[in-house]
Amino acid sequence: MLKRYLLAPGPTPVPPEALLAMAAPIMHHRTPEFSAVFRRVADRARGLFATEQPVLLLASTGTGAMEAAVTNTLSRGDRVLVVEAGKFGERWGEICASYGLEVTAIKVEWGQAVAPETVAAELAKHPDTKALLIQGSETSTTVLHPIAEIARLTRETDCLLIVDGITSVGVVDIPMDATGIDVLVTGSQKAIMLPPGLALIALSEKAWRANRSATLPRYYFDLAKERKSLEKDTSAYTPAVSLIVGLDAVFDLIESTGGLAEVYRRHAILAEATRAGARALGMRLLASDSPSPAVTGVWLPDSVDGAEFPKLLRNVFGVQVAGGQGHLKGKIIRIGHIGYSDAFDVIVAMSALEMALRKSGVEVQAGAGTSAAQNVLMRLYDGA
Amino acid sequence: MLKRYLLAPGPTPVPPEALLAMAAPIMHHRTPEFSAVFRRVADRARGLFATEQPVLLLASTGTGAMEAAVTNTLSRGDRVLVVEAGKFGERWGEICASYGLEVTAIKVEWGQAVAPETVAAELAKHPDTKALLIQGSETSTTVLHPIAEIARLTRETDCLLIVDGITSVGVVDIPMDATGIDVLVTGSQKAIMLPPGLALIALSEKAWRANRSATLPRYYFDLAKERKSLEKDTSAYTPAVSLIVGLDAVFDLIESTGGLAEVYRRHAILAEATRAGARALGMRLLASDSPSPAVTGVWLPDSVDGAEFPKLLRNVFGVQVAGGQGHLKGKIIRIGHIGYSDAFDVIVAMSALEMALRKSGVEVQAGAGTSAAQNVLMRLYDGA
Repeated sequence: MLKRYLLAPGPTPVPPEALLAMAAPIMHHRTPEFSAVFRRVADRARGLFATEQPVLLLASTGTGAMEAAVTNTLSRGDRVLVVEAGKFGERWGEICASYGLEVTAIKVEWGQAVAPETVAAELAKHPDTKALLIQGSETSTTVLHPIAEIARLTRETDCLLIVDGITSVGVVDIPMDATGIDVLVTGSQKAIMLPPGLALIALSEKAWRANRSATLPRYYFDLAKERKSLEKDTSAYTPAVSLIVGLDAVFDLIESTGGLAEVYRRHAILAEATRAGARALGMRLLASDSPSPAVTGVWLPDSVDGAEFPKLLRNVFGVQVAGGQGHLKGKIIRIGHIGYSDAFDVIVAMSALEMALRKSGVEVQAGAGTSAAQNVLMRLYDGA
Repeated sequence: MLKRYLLAPGPTPVPPEALLAMAAPIMHHRTPEFSAVFRRVADRARGLFATEQPVLLLASTGTGAMEAAVTNTLSRGDRVLVVEAGKFGERWGEICASYGLEVTAIKVEWGQAVAPETVAAELAKHPDTKALLIQGSETSTTVLHPIAEIARLTRETDCLLIVDGITSVGVVDIPMDATGIDVLVTGSQKAIMLPPGLALIALSEKAWRANRSATLPRYYFDLAKERKSLEKDTSAYTPAVSLIVGLDAVFDLIESTGGLAEVYRRHAILAEATRAGARALGMRLLASDSPSPAVTGVWLPDSVDGAEFPKLLRNVFGVQVAGGQGHLKGKIIRIGHIGYSDAFDVIVAMSALEMALRKSGVEVQAGAGTSAAQNVLMRLYDGA
């Protein structure tokens, strides 16, 4: 018997409440019953994004919504600035290049956050920049970018700030409207604890204005059409019915357990505990300066076979973490603590790490990681 | 207590076997366990399409795959012929126009199938046509188009035959390779009995050749990239994990209950029974010449309020059918018998129709529809 623990930065485990809701008989999507769910979910999503704007629900994963962010606000030949601090930053660049935009990349060392001054300098160098594209949290390097500071550079200008919030929305409090984000995107298989296949996207007034003159081709991801449909409590094309029903259950769960403030607090504590545990095991953090509260990257000791180590964790201990991507492949592991994740997931991760390191011949003090993590995790139960 | 019956042309009911499979704890998508499922499902999908080509699995609904069919095989300014015999034919035209193609529409009266001679004449008139786009079954008008005859017009030419098989794949036996279809598309919420959110698409060798020179922009729906990923038992972006697991269960169900031959036989009999029942109730069929085996459209009597009638069926009898689309709105209802649908679904539909007509003041002989349907349905049990 091998119990399985999914501790990756997405897909994340789905709470039983949502699994049950999604296992209910399927609803027809053009009915008052489903329209009521659709409307309620879209409204609750506005709370999640902290925006007055409509949040649109797309039947795709996050990458589809990233493409939608580009094709619905820009035109061929437009200049864009892309923060390339990891694999998903590169994805922004690839999407923009696919559609014939003029891409200027701000390349940042993997594991580092972009410095707002660097962005400011690039914006000054290219005053014709139509959009700045960035991740809230760069999942591949476990870094949190300083979105609020960067938004201060764009919000009084014509340049759009387009943020991939796939591992930051519902993880850390970056309110869309108050921050000045123009396009915000997320996906279902991360903080909102569902299977992959639903994407959420919202546009600021500035972005909707840009939409009116944006000429890149689009059909399935036509956000103006989706907004019109949402006004009638429906979607332009068949919606991902079961995931929307699941999201309603997830919002119930979040609401009944302290709301978003508690969600952000939990993610921050789980992340801090994971970092404390890893450090106590003598491991170096990939993102030491600006770590993401969604996922923690740690360098593997040189003596450890980096390709085998995640397999050891999975096959012997039943613990699924993520390895490195791109040039970090085989050099790091990434431990997710996003979504349906609690104190004991961190304890399991630390304990598995201890045992897998010992099995790999690394000298480790049993319990060093778990106890360091536990000291932080105690804060989760303050006042209980 | 109001028991609900989903008798629409999609989403269709999901079998308990698939609901249970999808309610299992979520798998990480980059694991040998999930890769094995992904590979198995993609292979089984080749059986469903009857093709030697790879069948690609996209996290979107069918419309996304329709867009992919266009953007992956064509270039700006290409001439295309679109059979517009209903709402989904119009959708082909809209997609092509969005991407700057030269669209020539073959307009067909709603309720009629396109005549192969008409297509032949249009192809002769426009020898530079790069693709002919059509539905296998036009869901909005409940019509089956003569795909095999049309394929004979395109298969020895450079013109691609692009077929929306959303309500024909898994319903009627139109084998992709043997027929000469170049691009075939379907979605999860129809014959394959799953919630919406997964699309399947395959390209012929001719279409893959066209793909190499096709310059329309694409990113999320990049089929060459998906094909490469599939060779490594995975997808380019996060797959719709739960739907793929569900599809595996659906293929198990189909295999263990007589395979695809039985699926086609069942759809044909259910459709014929529905038509027989409706006729016995004195109702006129929308598609009398070439009816779809997926869905049956019937004209409502003039004395009946066409907007209210589907609501009566739903709210009083718990029976969900579809109304008309476009200019057929309020004039017809469409009864689905696609996917997880059996003899007693047709009986329920007929019985509800009888009672709702009576409640609407139409004189109907009780049992006329159900008994006419039953006479056909008996054939389902031949040999049992």
